[in-house]
Amino acid sequence: MSTRIRLSPEDRRAQLIALGVELIATRTLDEVSIDLLAEEAGVSRGLLYHYFGGKQEFLLAVLRHMADELFLATAPVDHPDLVHRLRVSLVNYLGFVRDHHTAYLSFMQTARGGSSPEVRAIYEDGRGALTDRIFDSATADELAVFGIADTPSSRLFARGWSAMVEDVLMAWLDDARGLTEDELIDSLTFSLGGVLGVVAR
Amino acid sequence: MSTRIRLSPEDRRAQLIALGVELIATRTLDEVSIDLLAEEAGVSRGLLYHYFGGKQEFLLAVLRHMADELFLATAPVDHPDLVHRLRVSLVNYLGFVRDHHTAYLSFMQTARGGSSPEVRAIYEDGRGALTDRIFDSATADELAVFGIADTPSSRLFARGWSAMVEDVLMAWLDDARGLTEDELIDSLTFSLGGVLGVVAR
Repeated sequence: MSTRIRLSPEDRRAQLIALGVELIATRTLDEVSIDLLAEEAGVSRGLLYHYFGGKQEFLLAVLRHMADELFLATAPVDHPDLVHRLRVSLVNYLGFVRDHHTAYLSFMQTARGGSSPEVRAIYEDGRGALTDRIFDSATADELAVFGIADTPSSRLFARGWSAMVEDVLMAWLDDARGLTEDELIDSLTFSLGGVLGVVAR
Repeated sequence: MSTRIRLSPEDRRAQLIALGVELIATRTLDEVSIDLLAEEAGVSRGLLYHYFGGKQEFLLAVLRHMADELFLATAPVDHPDLVHRLRVSLVNYLGFVRDHHTAYLSFMQTARGGSSPEVRAIYEDGRGALTDRIFDSATADELAVFGIADTPSSRLFARGWSAMVEDVLMAWLDDARGLTEDELIDSLTFSLGGVLGVVAR
């Protein structure tokens, strides 16, 4: 028998998920197998099936964890200026994407590829939560200064804006086109007001 | 032997591609097979392999055709006002996506899913051509009225804006959220200036 320290089921589960995050940092989702995970974790395949039920469920747990981490990492800071809060969130978003580049790309591609409705749901829910939080963490007065009203169509366009942010960020990481990180973040920050300021209602 | 009218190889190829566009209108790319195509076209599998080499090559030809059609359908109209031209292009883009909804979704998902670099390249090239054309079909003065300069970062953000347009359009087709088509198109049209007007350089 192993001399490994006995962890509580919750801790063991969390440890395996953390390992999963590491595994998808250098591999696509398709390349992760229960065998690989068992080997890397030094546990039996049986234990993995016991905790997660299968590879797909394990990956979903890992992606859910990643979406939660992203949500936490980009939480609005305690500052009276909405623009400043948004700017810090975008800096942290960029940092997160940079730290988890392969995993994030893989997550995004699987979600958008449409082969897994579950992965898509985790991704879309995460994206919705991120943009809804912009409205929910600001007062109507703050939004008004930015030229924004909290309406269903503003939220629709805020979500669209997040697709733009993702697209621009990924392309910028690939080729900065002479744009410094500060300029990138500023442009992304102000583009939210630029978009929402013209939404018809 | 068949009594079918003999078509030139070019015409026969174009006819098969047109049939492919019809096939992917109601099926995902995965569901299209050479067998299905041969049956629908009333030609032998051998002829299809002769023209395209295989299913993947056939699908790529169909998607290239669709990207070309989209490019043509959204060509700037002959009108002195850049905003008007952009508006008409967006109306035609919406019309195209509506007319080819399943096919477009399937194309987009396959491109973004990352399973096929070739499909991704057709999609990304098409997207780049669409947004580059905005700059190439306008004079510097026209762009300036819109608050836009033609720089690498403007082009980067214009491309990001197109990701937003796609995201908002697809979501709007799913649930209009009380936004009329005119309001949607207006919001999308003016959001380009809203975004590009704040890009740092």
